[in-house]
Amino acid sequence: MTAQLSKKGEAWSARFSEPVSDLVKRYTASVFFDNRLAKADIQGSLAHAEMLAAQGIISAADHAEIVRGMTQIGQEIEAGKFEWLLDLEDVHLNIEKRLTELVGDAGKRLHTGRSRNDQVATDIRLYVRSAIDDIGVLLAALRGALTDLAEQHADTIMPGFTHMQVAQPITFGHHMLAYVEMFGRDAERMADCRKRVNRLPLGAAALAGTTFPIDRLRVAKTLGFDDVCHNSLDAVSDRDFAIEFCAAAALVMTHISRMSEELVIWMSPRVGFIDIADRFCTGSSIMPQKKNPDVPELARGKTGRVYGHLMGLLTLMKGQPLAYNKDNQEDKEPLFDTVDTLVDTLRIFADMAGGISVKPEAMRAAALQGYATATDLADYLVKKGLPFRDAHEAVARAVRACVDAGCDLADLSLEQLQAFSPLTGADVFEVLTLEGSVAARDHVGGTAPRQVRAAIARVRAQLAG
Amino acid sequence: MTAQLSKKGEAWSARFSEPVSDLVKRYTASVFFDNRLAKADIQGSLAHAEMLAAQGIISAADHAEIVRGMTQIGQEIEAGKFEWLLDLEDVHLNIEKRLTELVGDAGKRLHTGRSRNDQVATDIRLYVRSAIDDIGVLLAALRGALTDLAEQHADTIMPGFTHMQVAQPITFGHHMLAYVEMFGRDAERMADCRKRVNRLPLGAAALAGTTFPIDRLRVAKTLGFDDVCHNSLDAVSDRDFAIEFCAAAALVMTHISRMSEELVIWMSPRVGFIDIADRFCTGSSIMPQKKNPDVPELARGKTGRVYGHLMGLLTLMKGQPLAYNKDNQEDKEPLFDTVDTLVDTLRIFADMAGGISVKPEAMRAAALQGYATATDLADYLVKKGLPFRDAHEAVARAVRACVDAGCDLADLSLEQLQAFSPLTGADVFEVLTLEGSVAARDHVGGTAPRQVRAAIARVRAQLAG
Amino acid sequence: MTAQLSKKGEAWSARFSEPVSDLVKRYTASVFFDNRLAKADIQGSLAHAEMLAAQGIISAADHAEIVRGMTQIGQEIEAGKFEWLLDLEDVHLNIEKRLTELVGDAGKRLHTGRSRNDQVATDIRLYVRSAIDDIGVLLAALRGALTDLAEQHADTIMPGFTHMQVAQPITFGHHMLAYVEMFGRDAERMADCRKRVNRLPLGAAALAGTTFPIDRLRVAKTLGFDDVCHNSLDAVSDRDFAIEFCAAAALVMTHISRMSEELVIWMSPRVGFIDIADRFCTGSSIMPQKKNPDVPELARGKTGRVYGHLMGLLTLMKGQPLAYNKDNQEDKEPLFDTVDTLVDTLRIFADMAGGISVKPEAMRAAALQGYATATDLADYLVKKGLPFRDAHEAVARAVRACVDAGCDLADLSLEQLQAFSPLTGADVFEVLTLEGSVAARDHVGGTAPRQVRAAIARVRAQLAG
Amino acid sequence: MTAQLSKKGEAWSARFSEPVSDLVKRYTASVFFDNRLAKADIQGSLAHAEMLAAQGIISAADHAEIVRGMTQIGQEIEAGKFEWLLDLEDVHLNIEKRLTELVGDAGKRLHTGRSRNDQVATDIRLYVRSAIDDIGVLLAALRGALTDLAEQHADTIMPGFTHMQVAQPITFGHHMLAYVEMFGRDAERMADCRKRVNRLPLGAAALAGTTFPIDRLRVAKTLGFDDVCHNSLDAVSDRDFAIEFCAAAALVMTHISRMSEELVIWMSPRVGFIDIADRFCTGSSIMPQKKNPDVPELARGKTGRVYGHLMGLLTLMKGQPLAYNKDNQEDKEPLFDTVDTLVDTLRIFADMAGGISVKPEAMRAAALQGYATATDLADYLVKKGLPFRDAHEAVARAVRACVDAGCDLADLSLEQLQAFSPLTGADVFEVLTLEGSVAARDHVGGTAPRQVRAAIARVRAQLAG
Repeated sequence: MTAQLSKKGEAWSARFSEPVSDLVKRYTASVFFDNRLAKADIQGSLAHAEMLAAQGIISAADHAEIVRGMTQIGQEIEAGKFEWLLDLEDVHLNIEKRLTELVGDAGKRLHTGRSRNDQVATDIRLYVRSAIDDIGVLLAALRGALTDLAEQHADTIMPGFTHMQVAQPITFGHHMLAYVEMFGRDAERMADCRKRVNRLPLGAAALAGTTFPIDRLRVAKTLGFDDVCHNSLDAVSDRDFAIEFCAAAALVMTHISRMSEELVIWMSPRVGFIDIADRFCTGSSIMPQKKNPDVPELARGKTGRVYGHLMGLLTLMKGQPLAYNKDNQEDKEPLFDTVDTLVDTLRIFADMAGGISVKPEAMRAAALQGYATATDLADYLVKKGLPFRDAHEAVARAVRACVDAGCDLADLSLEQLQAFSPLTGADVFEVLTLEGSVAARDHVGGTAPRQVRAAIARVRAQLAG
Repeated sequence: MTAQLSKKGEAWSARFSEPVSDLVKRYTASVFFDNRLAKADIQGSLAHAEMLAAQGIISAADHAEIVRGMTQIGQEIEAGKFEWLLDLEDVHLNIEKRLTELVGDAGKRLHTGRSRNDQVATDIRLYVRSAIDDIGVLLAALRGALTDLAEQHADTIMPGFTHMQVAQPITFGHHMLAYVEMFGRDAERMADCRKRVNRLPLGAAALAGTTFPIDRLRVAKTLGFDDVCHNSLDAVSDRDFAIEFCAAAALVMTHISRMSEELVIWMSPRVGFIDIADRFCTGSSIMPQKKNPDVPELARGKTGRVYGHLMGLLTLMKGQPLAYNKDNQEDKEPLFDTVDTLVDTLRIFADMAGGISVKPEAMRAAALQGYATATDLADYLVKKGLPFRDAHEAVARAVRACVDAGCDLADLSLEQLQAFSPLTGADVFEVLTLEGSVAARDHVGGTAPRQVRAAIARVRAQLAG
Repeated sequence: MTAQLSKKGEAWSARFSEPVSDLVKRYTASVFFDNRLAKADIQGSLAHAEMLAAQGIISAADHAEIVRGMTQIGQEIEAGKFEWLLDLEDVHLNIEKRLTELVGDAGKRLHTGRSRNDQVATDIRLYVRSAIDDIGVLLAALRGALTDLAEQHADTIMPGFTHMQVAQPITFGHHMLAYVEMFGRDAERMADCRKRVNRLPLGAAALAGTTFPIDRLRVAKTLGFDDVCHNSLDAVSDRDFAIEFCAAAALVMTHISRMSEELVIWMSPRVGFIDIADRFCTGSSIMPQKKNPDVPELARGKTGRVYGHLMGLLTLMKGQPLAYNKDNQEDKEPLFDTVDTLVDTLRIFADMAGGISVKPEAMRAAALQGYATATDLADYLVKKGLPFRDAHEAVARAVRACVDAGCDLADLSLEQLQAFSPLTGADVFEVLTLEGSVAARDHVGGTAPRQVRAAIARVRAQLAG
Repeated sequence: MTAQLSKKGEAWSARFSEPVSDLVKRYTASVFFDNRLAKADIQGSLAHAEMLAAQGIISAADHAEIVRGMTQIGQEIEAGKFEWLLDLEDVHLNIEKRLTELVGDAGKRLHTGRSRNDQVATDIRLYVRSAIDDIGVLLAALRGALTDLAEQHADTIMPGFTHMQVAQPITFGHHMLAYVEMFGRDAERMADCRKRVNRLPLGAAALAGTTFPIDRLRVAKTLGFDDVCHNSLDAVSDRDFAIEFCAAAALVMTHISRMSEELVIWMSPRVGFIDIADRFCTGSSIMPQKKNPDVPELARGKTGRVYGHLMGLLTLMKGQPLAYNKDNQEDKEPLFDTVDTLVDTLRIFADMAGGISVKPEAMRAAALQGYATATDLADYLVKKGLPFRDAHEAVARAVRACVDAGCDLADLSLEQLQAFSPLTGADVFEVLTLEGSVAARDHVGGTAPRQVRAAIARVRAQLAG
C-alpha cells in the first residue's frame, strides 16, 4: 500500500480492469504542454501544505518534508533535469510522484483536501496573473517608445487620411498618440481582467469542497489572491477569466494589426513616409533589391492566431454542463500561445519604435496633395457668417474647379476664390497653409502641436504613476 | 445657396460629376438600421448645439431654433411619423435635413465644428452605455431569481457531476449559486466596459479636431460622460469599446448556454430532475406527447449568434488603417443584435427561473447511485492516519468490489469495509450518508447548507448594494 | 374536432395546461424571418401532396383542393396580402392554417407522413440551392467583367508587389486575372456544395421516418433533387450543408476583401494607379474635397459579417445531440444574411469593374522605381553561367550601390555593371527594360502579355461552357 | 563569390547595412515548425531539378549532384541527424544550404527559375494532399467501425430523442448510421477540396513567373498534380485551399462533437445506455469510484481548437493585398495542428467504436417511458379516416389523460382509447408496441430494421468501391 505512483494509470487503477491504451494515453496526456505550469504548481502546493500544517491536518514534520522535496524538484526543473513522463499524464501527477519518491508518505499527504480540478484552476490563474503583469510592463514600454517618437515629431506635418484619401493635415506625433491611447485602453482591460483572475479556486476540491477543516483565506493570502472563489462548482468549472484575457489580447492584436498595416503602407515606395531599420527587415531569396517590413507583416498575420484562440476557447465552453469535464484540458495551449504571441510581439514593437525613421519631406509633399485644407476654407467661410452646409457646398465647387484646372486651392487667386463666395477676404490664404491648419485644431485631443505636447505630458504622467 | 438637402448625394454633390447609382445607394445606406440611434443622435446634437451657443459659435437664437426643431423631430420619430429616406443615407443626414426644413439656416449651422465621424462614434457610445445599464439591471434580476431558487433548495440534495458521472453529493441550491457567481462576474465585466465606453469622441470632428473654439468637457458633462477621448484620430477610428462589449456579451451567452444545457438534460425523462412550466415549452406538430424545453434550447443556439458577432467585429477592425473608413459602418448591426439577444434572453431566463420545479426524490435517487460518498470514505481513512494516496487506493478497491457485487458502499458490512482498510471503525457509516457528506463540506464556497445560506446572504447584500 | 388552427399553441395545446407566455412566443417565433422560405415551403408541400395522392394516402380530390389552396396562398403572398401571425410561430404553420381556412379537411391532411422537422430541412435546402445558382451566375458575371478589364490592359505595365515593396514588373491584366482565378475556385466550391445540398430530407418525418407508404424518390424527382437523404435522423438534424455554404461564402468574401484592399490603396492619391467612377463613391459631410471609395471599403467590412455567420453556425451545431433541437432555428438568419451579402456584393462588384479607370503612366512610373528588374539581371547572369545564389549576391551589391547613388540599375554604365560581375555584356540593357522583363515571363501562368491573352481565352471558354 | 550560405541573413545581406536582430530572427523564423515540410520540400526540389535538366537550364551533371545531395539530406533528416539552424530561418534555406555544402555550385543552381514563394506554396499543397489522403482512409475506417456496430444493433430498440425528450422508438443501428452518413459527407468534402489542392504553383516564382524556359506541366506530372495554377500572382498569394481544408475539418469535428456529446450522455448513470471500455476512460485523483469518458470529452473540447484555426486562417487572409506577404507564414501552424487533431481523433474514434458496449434493456426501458408510440396512434387514426391535425389533437388529449393517471398509452383499455376517438379498434394495440412502431417506418432512410440493413449494405458497397 506504499507503492509508488509509477504510472499515472495507478492513480485510479484499482477500479479499472484494463489499462489505458497507448493511443489514449498520448491523446489525453497534457504533460508535454502543461509542464509550463510547474512553477505555479509548486507555488500552489507549498501554500496548500503550509495551510494544512497550520490547520493541523498534516504534521509540521510532513510539511517540512514537502518543502524540502518541492525545493529539490524546483531545482531539478530549473536545471532541465526533471524527467517528464507521459505515463503520468500531467504536470500535477509528475510532480507529486517525484515528491513521493523524495519524501515518501509526506508526499502522499499533500493531496489531502484538494483535487486536480481545483489545483489546475489555481495553477492557470497564477500563470495568467503573471502573464498579465508581464504584458502590463510591455504595454507601458511600447507606449513609452511611441510617446518618444511622438515627441520627436510633434510638429512633423503629414496628411491625415480617411478612406485612404487625404482628409486634413495632422502631425505624425498626433498620429502616434492615437496608438498610445489604444494600447492604454488595452492596459486598462488587462488590469480589469486581473481582478477576476486573482481569486483562489483552491479548496473547491473536486467540485463540492472538502471535509477537511481548511482555511482558504490563508491560502489566498499566501498566494497573493484578492479573494477566494465563492462557489466550489463555479471554481473548478469556469474558465471565463481565461476567455476574458484572450479577448483583451485579441484587442491588443487588433491594434497591433492596424499599426502594422500603416507601417507597411508607409514604407511602400509609392508612399515612402517612413523607413524601418534594416534589423527589422528581411530580403528576398530571388529579388536582390528587396527590403521587406517582415516584422509588422508577421505581427499582422499573428492577429489571426489570437482571434482563433479566442474563438477556440469560447467554443470549448459553449454548452458544457457543470462541473469539470475533460474538455477543459484544451484551455491551456491556446492560452499559452496567446501569451507568447503577445509578449513577443509587444517586445519587438517597443524595440522597433526606435527603428522607425520618418521622412518629413515625403509627408509634407503628400499633405500638399489632395486639398487637405478644404475644411479650413469652409470653416473660414462659416466664421464669416455662412451656414456650415452652404460653406461646404461653396468649397466643394472650388475644389471641383481646382481638380479641373489641376491646381491646389492655395493656387487660386483671391478673385477666383471670391467667385465661390464673396465673403472671402485676403486673410484666407493664412488658413490654407498646412501649419495654420494644424495649429488651429487647438483643443483637447486636437492635432495642434501644443495639444500634442500636452497629451505627451499626460501619458508620461500616467506611465510614471 | 440655401437649397435644402433633399438628397443625401447633395451633401457633397458639387465635387461629383455623376450621381451615386441606385444599387450603390442601397448597398451603402445605413438608415434602415441606424435609425435606432435617433434618440442618441438628437441627444448628442442638442448637447453640441448648447455648447456652440455657450461658446458663441452660434447665436442663442439659432440654438433656440435647433432645440425647437429637434423637439419636434423627436416627437415625430416617437409617433412613427418621421419619414426615413434611403436617399439621405443615414440617421444623421435624415435628421439634419428635417431640421433644416423646420428651422432653416439654424439647422445648417448645427454641423459646425463636428463631422459625421465623431457624431456617429458619440451616438454608438450613448447607445452602448444605455444597453449596458439595461443589461446590468437584467443580470441583477436573473441573479436574484436564481438566488431565490437556491434558497428554496439550500438543503435539496442532488448528485454533483464531473464528466457527467456522479462525483459527490451537493445541494441544488449550491448548484444554482454557481450560476449566480458567473452572472455576477458578467455584471462586473459590463461595468468595467462601461468605463471605456463612457468617454466623449465629439470634438474629434473628421479626424483632427476642429478650428472652432469648442468646449469638449462641457459637452461631456452635459451628456454624462466621465471624460473625453484624448486623441482625435483614435476617437473616430477605434471601436474597441464595442468589441469589448461583445466579448463580455459572449461570456454571458457562454454561461447561458451552460445553464441551458443542464436544464435540457435535467428535464430529459431519463434524468427527470426538474420540470419547466408549460408556458416556457412548446409541443410538436407531429408527436402529440411532446413537451419541449424550447427556451433553453433556443438560448443555447443563440450563443452562436453572439460569438459570431464578436468574430465579425474583430475581423472588421483587423488591419484597418486610421482614421475612419467606411468599413466601420458594419459595426452597428452586430452590436444591435447582440444587445437585443442579451436583453431578450436575460429577461426570459429571469422569468423562467420562477418556472423551474425541482424533483427532490429523483435527485436523491440519482445521488444514491454512483458511489457519491467514496471521497468521504477516503477522507475518513486519511483522518484515521492513512496518507491520502493510500486511502484513495483502498477505496478504489472497495468500489470495485461493490461494482462487482452490484451494491453501494453503505451496503457493505463493517467487516467487509475493514478488509480494505483495518482503520475503518463503526463511525464510518455516518460519513457515507448523503446528508453527512454534504454537511461536512463546511467552509467558504463549500456545498454545506450552512455555507449555501451564507453565500445567499452575501449575494443579496451585493444586489442590494 | 374540426376547429381551425387559429393559434399556433393549438397545434399541441391539448397536452398543455397553460398557454405559452407572450414573451416566450416572441422569443421562440421565427415567422418574421422564415417567411422568406414561403415559396420553397409551398413548392415542397405541393410535391409532398402530389406523392400522397399518387400513393393513395390522400384522395385525388384532397390533392386538387390542396393545389387550389396553395395557388391562392402563393398569390396572396406575392401580392403582399398574406397576414403573417406571430401566434402561428413559423412560416409552416401560417401557411397550413391558411390552407385549412381555404380548403378545410384536405388542408388538415397535408401534414400526413411528414413533420416540421423534415419540412423545414427541405425548405432550407431548396432555398440554398437557389441561392447557389444565383451566386454562380453572379460569380460568372464578375469574372467576365474582370476579364474584359484584363483584356484592355493585357499590356499595361505596373509594378508587382510583394510585402508592398516593388518586386517585378507585371501587367495590370495579369493582376486582374489573379482575381478571376480566385472567383473561379469560389464558383467550383459553390458547385461542389450544391451536390450535398441537393438531397431530399422529406420523408424523415420527425426523426424516424413515417408509417405511411410514402415514395421519397418520387418527391425528390419532382423537386429536382439528385438523391434522398439516406438516414432519417441525419436528415432532420444536420446542417452541415449550410455551414459548407457559409464557408464557401466566407472565401468569396476573403477574395472580395483582398481586391477591395487593393482598390482602396490604388485609389489613394500617393499611389494613384486607378480611379473609380463617381457613382461608386461618396463624399464627406465635412471635407468638401473628398471622394471616397465607399463600395470596396464597405465590402471589405462586410467580410466580418460573413466570417461571423460561419462561426455562429459552427458554434450552433457544436455538441448538439441528435436529432432535432430548437437550437437549429438559429440556422436561418445567418444563412439569409450571408446570401444577401454575397448577392449584393457580387452584383455591385461586377458593375464596378466597368467603372475602374486605369492610369498607366502612374503605374509605369511606379514600376521604374524600386529596381523592379533586379531579378532579370540576376537571371541574365545565371544564363551567362553564374550559379543563381552568386548572381543574386552580385545584383544585391549592385542595388546597394544604386541606393547609395540614388539611381536605377539601368542608369549604371556597362563598366559599372561589370564591376559587379565580369560576365555582364552590352546585351544586359535589354533585360533591364520593363517591356523586356514582362515579355520574358512567357510560360503558362506567367505575366507576358502573350500568356495573359491566352489565359483570357481560357477563362472565356470556361464561362461560355 | 562561392561563400556558403552559412547564415540566413546572407541570402540577401549585400543589400543590408546591419544584420537582423536576434529577437527579430526568432520572431520571424519558421524552421522549428516548417521543418515538417522537409519531405515535401525535397520532393518538390527534385521534380524542379529534373525539369531544369530536361529543359537544358542546368546540366545533367548538376542534376545528378542535386539528386545525390538531396538523397543524403533525406537520410539525415530521417535519421534525426540533420541540424536545423534558426539562423537559416526556414526549411527551404536550411536544406538548400546543406545541399550547397554537399554538392557545391550545383546546389546553388537549384533555385534557378523559382522562388521561396512558389516553393513553399508547392510544399504546403503536397503536405495537405497527403493529409487529405490519410484522413480519407481514417474516415473510411471510422465509418466501417460504426457500420459494424450498427449491424450488431440493427434490431436494438432505443428511444429516439428530439429536444432530449422521447420522440419515437428507433434502433441503435439506425442511430449509428446517422453518423456514418455525416462522416461520409465529410469524406466527400475532403475529396472535393483535394481537387483544388492538387494544382501546381511552382513556376510562379516570386509572383510573375520566370524568364527561364521552364516546363510547368512536366513538373506537375512528376509530382502527381492534376493541373498547374494558371496565374502566377494567385499561385503564390492565395491560401484558399488551406482554408477550405480547415473548413472541412471543422465539420468533421462538428460531427465528432455531436457523437461525443451523445456518448457522454449515454454513459451518464441516469441514462446508462452504453459503457465505454476501460481503456478509453480515466479515473479521478480524488474520487476513487470515478470512470470518466475522457476520450469523447476531450474530442468534444478539441472542436474548439479546429474552429479556432479556421477563424485564424480566415483572419489571416482578410484584406491582404497581392502578392505574397510575410503574414502568410502564419498559415502553417494552424494547418499542421488541424491535421494532427483530425488524424489522432479519427484514429481513436475508429478504435473506440469497438469498445462501446450497448445496454439494450436500459434502452428499451427508456423507450417505454415517454409515450414514444403516440405518433403511431395518430397515424392509426389517420388511416381510419381522421384528418391528421384532428388525429394529433385526439392523441394529445389521450396523452394528457395518461400523464394525469401516471400510465402509458398501451395501459389504457380499448374503451378508454375510444373515448378520444370512436375510430379506434382492437387492432390499435399492435401499433402501440415498440417493435411494431419501428418496423412500420419501412422506407428508404427509415428506422425499420429491414431498412437499416439495406443502408448498411449500401455503405459497405461505398467503402468497398
